[in-house]
Amino acid sequence: MLQPGDTIGILGGGQLGRMMALAASRIGLKSHIYCPDPNSPAFDVTAFHTCASYEDEAALEAFARSVQRVTYEFENIPAPTVEFLKARLPVLPGDNVLKTSQDRLTEKNFFASIDIPTAGFYDISSEQDLRDGVAKLGLPALLKTRRFGYDGKGQVFLKNEADLTGALDAIGNQPAILEAFVPFEREISVIAARNEQGQTVSYDIAENVHKNQILKTTTVPAHISPEVAAQARQIGEKVAQALDYVGVLAVELFLLPDSFDQRLVANEMAPRVHNSGHWTESACLVSQFEQHIRAVAGWPLGDTRRHSDVVMTNLIGDDINAWPKHLSHPSSSLHSYGKSETRDGRKMGHLNQISPIKGD
Amino acid sequence: MLQPGDTIGILGGGQLGRMMALAASRIGLKSHIYCPDPNSPAFDVTAFHTCASYEDEAALEAFARSVQRVTYEFENIPAPTVEFLKARLPVLPGDNVLKTSQDRLTEKNFFASIDIPTAGFYDISSEQDLRDGVAKLGLPALLKTRRFGYDGKGQVFLKNEADLTGALDAIGNQPAILEAFVPFEREISVIAARNEQGQTVSYDIAENVHKNQILKTTTVPAHISPEVAAQARQIGEKVAQALDYVGVLAVELFLLPDSFDQRLVANEMAPRVHNSGHWTESACLVSQFEQHIRAVAGWPLGDTRRHSDVVMTNLIGDDINAWPKHLSHPSSSLHSYGKSETRDGRKMGHLNQISPIKGD
Repeated sequence: MLQPGDTIGILGGGQLGRMMALAASRIGLKSHIYCPDPNSPAFDVTAFHTCASYEDEAALEAFARSVQRVTYEFENIPAPTVEFLKARLPVLPGDNVLKTSQDRLTEKNFFASIDIPTAGFYDISSEQDLRDGVAKLGLPALLKTRRFGYDGKGQVFLKNEADLTGALDAIGNQPAILEAFVPFEREISVIAARNEQGQTVSYDIAENVHKNQILKTTTVPAHISPEVAAQARQIGEKVAQALDYVGVLAVELFLLPDSFDQRLVANEMAPRVHNSGHWTESACLVSQFEQHIRAVAGWPLGDTRRHSDVVMTNLIGDDINAWPKHLSHPSSSLHSYGKSETRDGRKMGHLNQISPIKGD
Repeated sequence: MLQPGDTIGILGGGQLGRMMALAASRIGLKSHIYCPDPNSPAFDVTAFHTCASYEDEAALEAFARSVQRVTYEFENIPAPTVEFLKARLPVLPGDNVLKTSQDRLTEKNFFASIDIPTAGFYDISSEQDLRDGVAKLGLPALLKTRRFGYDGKGQVFLKNEADLTGALDAIGNQPAILEAFVPFEREISVIAARNEQGQTVSYDIAENVHKNQILKTTTVPAHISPEVAAQARQIGEKVAQALDYVGVLAVELFLLPDSFDQRLVANEMAPRVHNSGHWTESACLVSQFEQHIRAVAGWPLGDTRRHSDVVMTNLIGDDINAWPKHLSHPSSSLHSYGKSETRDGRKMGHLNQISPIKGD
């Protein structure tokens, strides 16, 4: 268990690392950001940072000596980096979690192993596998690389037989997974947290809308029944418990139409704070960022209750240029990530707009 | 007007500077802390800090070159420091404000000049003045140094004639002010903000309870009528406008019993974010800290509305040792200032506890 004034090392210097560091400061912990990018926005909010590659063992060694625990803002940390650090101090969440979530196939098998439903899936290593998979799952379907995909990168939508030609080339002939297309009604997500004492909590369920495969808005409460909401929270907490998880995680779920027996299927998990939890900053007293830091520190988790309804809107690319308007928006809070360069599709900030909780 | 990514210089590295820097980060601004104390808690939350005396002109020169605007967390900055900096870049709030608020007599005269009632007061430079003052104002009364007093330091309570003997010695024979004792029913405060465009806002009125002359709790809403609350907000906004103020300020007010014609009298003002505004962090979307940074940046002010009722409790000295309990408290948010040393009477953190807004 950390003591006040201790330092948490954070791998990754993007907006998630930045928001974790800000949350750590609020509860009296220091942070040290490690990131190879000299323009990391998280470098601006801490006294300590290391700008070095994830393979630089001298830098990693010095980093490990300067902090008491390590966490991360992204799941694609090179395995040797984690190995190196965990030989020296706790790295949380643990590497069992990274192994599960870095590979879509392993992740789907994990969901199956704890009876969390997913869309049908098929392991793809060859053209023959792809044909077999399509024969089994039908079309349309999604072909995705097993590793290193995010925001729609590394995936192909297969609508008809003709789309199979060249599909494996399009994703670089990497090990892949074929996923049955699910005619979902809504996309929702659950943010759960667990600490090393086993205390497990979750936030209210969020409803997400994507645009060009990037999250655009998150609305809480989601337009779902209390029963579905309770099931979704149970899924988040079950994942955390099954993995002996320490920290915050997100599980993205599809809500299927009423005509399906099983209405919730897990899409994927993220072993970290998640864009669909940014609303917690403005509608809860303890945000997902603070919750994650508490868990990593071995501290008691905080109250996850919501004081307000909320809509989070991502500010992507040029959206941020209207910042004076966003600052003036009633009942709204702008969070700007301090990125030095605006690019198309780049997450630059978000706007949380709250309103009083509506009665059921 | 600052641009996103610009840097605000903050004089003073205590908890107020720290919370201002955290708020600046949220809206995409950098900060640079200037403080002579090597253990300044604000140093931990920014990439840039200068540890040097307020008289070190080389350090001040380098500081001035590295930031676009300067603000401060305390009103007792040496006048030559402000002179030096304001010759180079904007220092906000302006030095007219510091001149007014650094001297209790000037401040009381300023209140009088804009028709804001205060307790009776008398300028004291000698034993004779003290006797004349007591003859005019009666006893009990308070003898206070004109400058450099805070948290009850530099003041003596005069209950009866015998207390006059040695009273001036007790405050170091400095220029002083005698203030009539006011039989107040409650202590309240208003937090107001104004930007350089003249936009002026205020927060809901807070009720304060002191213990050993240090703020212990702030409760919002205060137990006052809507009319008194409206008057108090007007006082805050009037002060901001009269001073062409840029930033956040607090005015502490006494509420007199119903039997008095004039129920509100101003006690003192603070030209900065204020302990009695820490509740805004948890009960409003835009805290006093962010509001101050917005004003100093020349940016639009934010919504001051409250989404919750709230009680802020200061954690003083050993109170912070119960941090695991504070972290677990329902509907509560702990803010810990990251101070390396706990001392009696030292403000170490605060706890905000919220509840749904009660109907009138």
